[in-house]
Amino acid sequence: MKGIIMIIDGMADRPLKEIGYRTPLESANTPNMDRMSKLGISGIMDPIKPGIRAGSDTSHISILGYDPYQVYTGRGPFEAAGVGLNVISGDIAFRCNFSTSNEEGIIIDRRAGRIREKTDEIVSTLNTIKLEGFEDVEIIFKESTGHRAVLILRGEGLSDQVSDSDPKYNGKVPKKVIALDGSPEAIKTAHILNKIVKISYEMLKNHPVNLERIENGKNPANIILPRGAGAVPDVKSFDDKYGIKSACIAETGLIKGIAKLAGIDVIEVDGATGGLDTNLENITNSIIQHAQMDYDFILINIDGADEAGHDGDLQGKLNFLEKVDQMVGEIMKISNTYFILTADHTTPISVMDHTGDPVPIVMSGPEIRVDEVSKFNENAASKGGLCRIRGSDIMNILMDLMNRSEKFGA
Amino acid sequence: MKGIIMIIDGMADRPLKEIGYRTPLESANTPNMDRMSKLGISGIMDPIKPGIRAGSDTSHISILGYDPYQVYTGRGPFEAAGVGLNVISGDIAFRCNFSTSNEEGIIIDRRAGRIREKTDEIVSTLNTIKLEGFEDVEIIFKESTGHRAVLILRGEGLSDQVSDSDPKYNGKVPKKVIALDGSPEAIKTAHILNKIVKISYEMLKNHPVNLERIENGKNPANIILPRGAGAVPDVKSFDDKYGIKSACIAETGLIKGIAKLAGIDVIEVDGATGGLDTNLENITNSIIQHAQMDYDFILINIDGADEAGHDGDLQGKLNFLEKVDQMVGEIMKISNTYFILTADHTTPISVMDHTGDPVPIVMSGPEIRVDEVSKFNENAASKGGLCRIRGSDIMNILMDLMNRSEKFGA
Repeated sequence: MKGIIMIIDGMADRPLKEIGYRTPLESANTPNMDRMSKLGISGIMDPIKPGIRAGSDTSHISILGYDPYQVYTGRGPFEAAGVGLNVISGDIAFRCNFSTSNEEGIIIDRRAGRIREKTDEIVSTLNTIKLEGFEDVEIIFKESTGHRAVLILRGEGLSDQVSDSDPKYNGKVPKKVIALDGSPEAIKTAHILNKIVKISYEMLKNHPVNLERIENGKNPANIILPRGAGAVPDVKSFDDKYGIKSACIAETGLIKGIAKLAGIDVIEVDGATGGLDTNLENITNSIIQHAQMDYDFILINIDGADEAGHDGDLQGKLNFLEKVDQMVGEIMKISNTYFILTADHTTPISVMDHTGDPVPIVMSGPEIRVDEVSKFNENAASKGGLCRIRGSDIMNILMDLMNRSEKFGA
Repeated sequence: MKGIIMIIDGMADRPLKEIGYRTPLESANTPNMDRMSKLGISGIMDPIKPGIRAGSDTSHISILGYDPYQVYTGRGPFEAAGVGLNVISGDIAFRCNFSTSNEEGIIIDRRAGRIREKTDEIVSTLNTIKLEGFEDVEIIFKESTGHRAVLILRGEGLSDQVSDSDPKYNGKVPKKVIALDGSPEAIKTAHILNKIVKISYEMLKNHPVNLERIENGKNPANIILPRGAGAVPDVKSFDDKYGIKSACIAETGLIKGIAKLAGIDVIEVDGATGGLDTNLENITNSIIQHAQMDYDFILINIDGADEAGHDGDLQGKLNFLEKVDQMVGEIMKISNTYFILTADHTTPISVMDHTGDPVPIVMSGPEIRVDEVSKFNENAASKGGLCRIRGSDIMNILMDLMNRSEKFGA
């Protein structure tokens, strides 16, 4: 038996006046999700615990069976892993912006004209930074999408207890990075970061990519501003934890990063944008293809519904849910598999951000105790046979259904 | 008010094609269990937590309000207590097989011809073992059923971090016991065990019981093979924990052992075999008799449904559930009592072992918030007023209903 968890990011919602006080899931036409409810057992699920507003990262960490309160040290490590850096336990990871500084050192554009091209060339230059007196510390940059990048500091005696350099608003100078806990490790790390910020301007102000941008009337990416320090946690391999072989098909660097840190094979799919325009057909084909391989477990994350939620785009969310429903219909054709369909958190159109409401969940497969629920939505699912579970229960339940668990006791 | 928990071992199941995708509880005729549902409040219960495959031992430990992750050190201590040894905290307990060794030291029958008689005489001999250099360590054997026995080592500087001597297959020599953690305590314990195994053969090869067996063409019980080391945990007395006087009526050594370790009075019942052939009438009479005594609380474990589950015996399970239902009807006649009916885990006919599915639970008694559930089975119970609880919640709920709890706060 195989197991497939489909996490439709931010799919759950709250009742909306515009659609007769129903939720998007209650309003959209989702015959395949409803069929899964008819064939399966439903419930509601708190990604972390009731009322806690989970991020996509902390929710996925919890669903994979790790304790986010132990493992989650900030977004940096997961983004760093997500963009393809081979992070190792103990690395200090940062999210960075390419920004534009003027000659007086004032940040005039935190996003460097929303630069999209040739950031890899800028990163190549940044990766030559050597700091006098800190030759033992490796400095590793990697470009992410747009004006974003990640930075890793690797070496002895470092700490993630340091503040951000990003001033958050244009018209300010970079904030001086300080040691938050006053430890020698944090003082050393803050010192290194302040040097990096200063040197980055010296190295980048006349960089060919920036000279070209200035010529074209664009703001140059002439300074790097790290923030969101996080120590890379020591995460036990997911496959070792459960004794299975796993794959992850996800769209965003954040979820891919979590999968990579957990040692799960990350499958890239052409046209997977993470937006409403994503290529669900390619994703579906990739899922079906990899389910035929020797993977026991596939984690799927589809991001568009969350984006629509953040944008308050009701029609966009409704349309996307109906597209996802077709995908669910195709995936359900995979044989010898337990399916779990759920969301990682609620992203209400009305709130335009994540909330702590529970999300609907349905499980189907051969030995399921089928209940009477026949619709997949927040309210119907709450009457199901699973009652109310937590994200951290999901893998235990799935491994038990797949006959992969060890008995505890006799 | 009194409290009675009836744990029907392995009663819960999964839907089975052979009976129209119903579970045995949905299929069997159980009017008394259904009446308890009508009169009571139902729910589903995870013995440990969702998806965790509980043993009967870890589940009962949890239901009695102890944390199995703290208390459960292996089967040895519970079996030792169950066969009537007065184990004390710190004892190292082992399960043993009487086996047959040939003159070359090869185990030719791990179960010594499934010996059933005069093992007490063999144990008397084994209990005279004195090990030179280890005079401070008490060596206590006790026969269990059939070819099984338990061994306790009592003394300073011992450890349960030792491997098994049982080679698991016939045709092999006993495995050398080794220290798993390399500690001096484990090295000492392993050394003692290796000596015991060796000496047991010397003491038993010409034992009168064995000479008689050989004469009758049976394999002699001429060597003892310990396994499953566990340190006896320091368990707070159940009666002190809850301020009550308690009894346990159970069939298997394992459950009796848990009760004894918790200081609960264990009531023996003639004809209680733990199988489908058990004498439920005697058990029922014993329950009714002890409920009239000064016990506040009685824990009942009936084992047959679990046995049928392990054997994949659907008809046996159905018949046994119907017999148990009659017992439930008789027990419900006891007045001034809160009743709880549940299972310790699911043992599906299809899996033939324990699974991590939740089990149905119903509570009835004078001040219960009665819900609309009117059938006792896995699916119906999930719609009940208890929603989904854990084994570790049960004693707290019962003590509260019995007005035996302390208020926490003001």
